[in-house]
Amino acid sequence: MPYVNIKITREGASSEQKARLIQGVTKLLVDVLGKNPKTTVVVIDEVDTDNWGIGGDQVTKLRGIAGGVANEQ
Amino acid sequence: MPYVNIKITREGASSEQKARLIQGVTKLLVDVLGKNPKTTVVVIDEVDTDNWGIGGDQVTKLRGIAGGVANEQ
Amino acid sequence: MPYVNIKITREGASSEQKARLIQGVTKLLVDVLGKNPKTTVVVIDEVDTDNWGIGGDQVTKLRGIAGGVANEQ
Amino acid sequence: MPYVNIKITREGASSEQKARLIQGVTKLLVDVLGKNPKTTVVVIDEVDTDNWGIGGDQVTKLRGIAGGVANEQ
Amino acid sequence: MPYVNIKITREGASSEQKARLIQGVTKLLVDVLGKNPKTTVVVIDEVDTDNWGIGGDQVTKLRGIAGGVANEQ
Amino acid sequence: MPYVNIKITREGASSEQKARLIQGVTKLLVDVLGKNPKTTVVVIDEVDTDNWGIGGDQVTKLRGIAGGVANEQ
Repeated sequence: MPYVNIKITREGASSEQKARLIQGVTKLLVDVLGKNPKTTVVVIDEVDTDNWGIGGDQVTKLRGIAGGVANEQ
Repeated sequence: MPYVNIKITREGASSEQKARLIQGVTKLLVDVLGKNPKTTVVVIDEVDTDNWGIGGDQVTKLRGIAGGVANEQ
Repeated sequence: MPYVNIKITREGASSEQKARLIQGVTKLLVDVLGKNPKTTVVVIDEVDTDNWGIGGDQVTKLRGIAGGVANEQ
Repeated sequence: MPYVNIKITREGASSEQKARLIQGVTKLLVDVLGKNPKTTVVVIDEVDTDNWGIGGDQVTKLRGIAGGVANEQ
Repeated sequence: MPYVNIKITREGASSEQKARLIQGVTKLLVDVLGKNPKTTVVVIDEVDTDNWGIGGDQVTKLRGIAGGVANEQ
Repeated sequence: MPYVNIKITREGASSEQKARLIQGVTKLLVDVLGKNPKTTVVVIDEVDTDNWGIGGDQVTKLRGIAGGVANEQ
């Protein structure tokens, strides 16, 4: 019955990768807490890099800078 | 003053259907809790079927399978 | 399969009122969008009035002022 | 380490305005609570006006009405 | 840099179980998407069974009924 | 009309500090986007350190370790 929301930047996650996230999180809740997988819901939100900030900066900006946090994932 | 977030899969809900959801939820909060409708906020998120999982599977996959949970809404 | 999150201030909503909210929202999603009630999840968050702001003020403060928005729900 | 989610209607906020929101919220958490800006995350969700309701009406509808709440932001 | 929110009913999850959820989700995001674990945030919300509904009923009520969905997790 | 959700660890934020967060975020949305403060909602969630993970570890554990990320806020 759990509900899990995963927020990531929109940077080309494939359908297959999303399937693995959904499968992995669902399995984790079964293994750790004995939750019922049938009613476990996982929702993935992909967010534009302009709309995601860390350290006070947009990810768009961080991606454009060589070195440092440029490769922040 | 309540805030309500409704998450559904993106599968063609019409503007008129969304209007009914907003109206219905707002009325419910007035009827049950006496909330002020003027400051009641309802936000509907439509999520791609690739990004929504239930039972460990993507809804995209469930939609493509005949029978079983194929008609899961 | 929808997921609904209702946020209200923590001001004495009874278990019976919460049951009515859950029932009402679930029914609305069935009626408007034909969603499956069995996998419709509703989560109610009750938030301390110190932690809820509207118009730039804490609800705790608004509740303490006679008249005006004092009765804001 | 805080996480902040800002939801606004999708009505043309520029990248520069989003940068100012991210910078401003991050600075606020440093100033008020001494939080570490490096791990402070801000996510902005822009929501279609059809999917945002206030007072029981869609913002799309409110925008189309002269006067009253027509200029509600 | 991802943000993950896990919502479960408040029914005695131990600190050690929560640690395993946090560790497992973080590892999953590293393995599947190559995300940086250092800035991956996981927040677990435990929700009273009165405040969680599925199938139109409060979990509190479902827990009290023998058989059927009584053991829904 | 914006909705802002601030999630922080529960570590003794005072009512006055929360009031400053609410006031500051509301003002920011007025200044940057011209939003109407009267319908701007800010909700602060305080999360137990056992329920908050960063870098794969519970904050509770990070707080107990001298040096390093011990002072992560």
